[in-house]
Amino acid sequence: MDVQTYMHGIGRQARTASRAMARADTATKNRALTVTAQAIERGEAALLAANAKDVAEARHKKLPDAALDRLTLTPKTIAAMADGLMQIVRLPDPIGEISGLSYRPSGIQVGQMRVPLGVVGIIYESRPNVTADAAGLCLKSGNAAILRGGSEALHSNQAIAACVREGLTAAGLPEHAVQVVETSDRAAVGELITMREFVDVIVPRGGKGLIERLLHESRIPMIQHLDGVCHVYIDDKADIDKAIRVADNAKTQRLGVCNAMETLLVARGIAHKILPPLCKIYLDKGIELRGDEAARAIVPEMNPANEQDWYTEYLAAILAVRVVDGLDQAIEHIATYGSKHTDAIVTEDLTRARRFLTEVDSSSVMVNASTRFADGYEYGLGAEIGISTDKLHARGPVGLEGLTSLKYVVFGDGHVRK
Amino acid sequence: MDVQTYMHGIGRQARTASRAMARADTATKNRALTVTAQAIERGEAALLAANAKDVAEARHKKLPDAALDRLTLTPKTIAAMADGLMQIVRLPDPIGEISGLSYRPSGIQVGQMRVPLGVVGIIYESRPNVTADAAGLCLKSGNAAILRGGSEALHSNQAIAACVREGLTAAGLPEHAVQVVETSDRAAVGELITMREFVDVIVPRGGKGLIERLLHESRIPMIQHLDGVCHVYIDDKADIDKAIRVADNAKTQRLGVCNAMETLLVARGIAHKILPPLCKIYLDKGIELRGDEAARAIVPEMNPANEQDWYTEYLAAILAVRVVDGLDQAIEHIATYGSKHTDAIVTEDLTRARRFLTEVDSSSVMVNASTRFADGYEYGLGAEIGISTDKLHARGPVGLEGLTSLKYVVFGDGHVRK
Repeated sequence: MDVQTYMHGIGRQARTASRAMARADTATKNRALTVTAQAIERGEAALLAANAKDVAEARHKKLPDAALDRLTLTPKTIAAMADGLMQIVRLPDPIGEISGLSYRPSGIQVGQMRVPLGVVGIIYESRPNVTADAAGLCLKSGNAAILRGGSEALHSNQAIAACVREGLTAAGLPEHAVQVVETSDRAAVGELITMREFVDVIVPRGGKGLIERLLHESRIPMIQHLDGVCHVYIDDKADIDKAIRVADNAKTQRLGVCNAMETLLVARGIAHKILPPLCKIYLDKGIELRGDEAARAIVPEMNPANEQDWYTEYLAAILAVRVVDGLDQAIEHIATYGSKHTDAIVTEDLTRARRFLTEVDSSSVMVNASTRFADGYEYGLGAEIGISTDKLHARGPVGLEGLTSLKYVVFGDGHVRK
Repeated sequence: MDVQTYMHGIGRQARTASRAMARADTATKNRALTVTAQAIERGEAALLAANAKDVAEARHKKLPDAALDRLTLTPKTIAAMADGLMQIVRLPDPIGEISGLSYRPSGIQVGQMRVPLGVVGIIYESRPNVTADAAGLCLKSGNAAILRGGSEALHSNQAIAACVREGLTAAGLPEHAVQVVETSDRAAVGELITMREFVDVIVPRGGKGLIERLLHESRIPMIQHLDGVCHVYIDDKADIDKAIRVADNAKTQRLGVCNAMETLLVARGIAHKILPPLCKIYLDKGIELRGDEAARAIVPEMNPANEQDWYTEYLAAILAVRVVDGLDQAIEHIATYGSKHTDAIVTEDLTRARRFLTEVDSSSVMVNASTRFADGYEYGLGAEIGISTDKLHARGPVGLEGLTSLKYVVFGDGHVRK
């Protein structure tokens, strides 16, 4: 069977299954999730065996250590998958909620009902736990899912998918509600992102290379995430202690995550006070600092920053530092070099805080809080399918609600339009 | 200057202007709209003169009467444009509203702020009044707009754009907040729908041909509208009077609109009672009926329907009629042949009404009301920029809110992530 025929078959089955999923009530969906979680826990040995095959092949192909690390399942990560599914069970079901139902002058009653998107295509790389997470979120939100993980994780993903099928079957839901693409042919992704008749939204979870490819080739709307070039701006009306606490945490609490600060902006009026103690913290923690001239005049240990540094998402122990004249220049810098992900101001000045919130066009804007809070769990969404740096449909962390849409519902009593 | 350079210049100016628009307060935006409306009223003679040039050229090019009709401005349509802008003045400003602000266990306060999308590209055909409507909606929602109307309306659009510029200038807003593309080179559309760095969303307002072209070529998300193959299903538990009233209105109140019924589905158990009187109304009003065998057995005046009829948006005095076994077959028919626009059930049965609302996957689903109600004004949105048959971002009639997005706002007091 050629890849197109295979993928269209999967698409058609997903489309059919999505209609049953849209009708499924909360108890049924929760039962499927619960049985899946139990199957994963009980199936630990089988999952580890399947994963061992993937890891052995990956070793044979000499994958880098970081990739091997992401690929490897352990009893702990397997327990975490099951636990994640049970957390999704405890989230409220978004489907069917009717909001704003009110009478119009014509006599009809109009409201909006929350409904699933339909079929969600998820493209990810080597982490097998995404299979369980994504399946769980799609299932709870009444969608069918087509999962296309990295070929290096195929055995693991098939083993997890078998647990999901067990859950679906136990709850009387169609087994095609969650399908794993079982070919490593890269053309399968090309089909998935262009079969508009079968797929309603694509969620890519992977590196920039993947997303840029999809941006060019996808014919289906995406919930996507590009760079996280996040800023903290320390205003000259900042409280020094808060500024140091927030700027330290934003960079060093965890490196290599999209909501970590990559560029620190400091107002000229406070730079002499804030940079020496703050940079000492960074240097003690092994962070390489790259500053503009004004910053380097204060902290000579900094390397010089060039234009490219302001655009860079290091995801590493490197921080760019720039001294700015004040709020206007900070906002301008973020507009020029930022990636509309997450940006924070530290200030005690109300008017400046309000301006920063309004004028910085990012998916999360913060006052006196660390950029590291930009996260579905921290925002109370429960699990997240990703963080969107797009503007349409969903911005910022995307949870169950991001996998839904609103349709209008109208009630009349034989009403007609005049 | 080549088209790409020209369009990128417009894009860059729009992007810059969008930042000032995002900051503009309600009073400023309303002043721009009010002065624009006054300029349009006062400029009636100039608008008519500009329009006369377009109409003369269109006559010379032998455009069909319907196109000439859409193109022609009259004192009445000019007054309606000004009035439409004043209606937008009276709508509440969606921008800046913060919802759901609440404390999280970490101590941060998280909410969502409604913000403009940024730059909206609108592509339309010959109606010059779209220029005023679209400019007004974009302006009130804090967006910058790039308007690309049909080349046959260029003089009219330029004259209207001059009024908008007068309004923007009087309010101290950047004149590039609303720009009309002044080249008739079709390549300009190709640039507009691919310059992702300058345009955040494309709203096509035009025929199916335009939209299908954009679907293939656009690299920017769209708020779009394809077919309106709308259904009314008359259940065997329907009230006969309501059924006749709704089905008559849905087809005949206005032909040629996207929310008019194109296919009538009647339950077998009530077909003998409902079809004779209802079809008499249709035939008396000159509607051509195309039925399946069961319908034609009851009303022999019907022509036979073929498979293609069920897919067709006639936008004309033609109605397809099918007798179905009941609710399941009606839902199945709509899923197979419908366009996810607007579908209605007529029934007194609560459980069936609930099933129809839940299981029919259309942007508007109705109970005992005419499909003709699917409209921004009828739903209380005020003006509408279009009706979306997409699922992401906006479904159904799209008003001011559809031109906005939500960003997360986070307040802390020096809070950091543990």
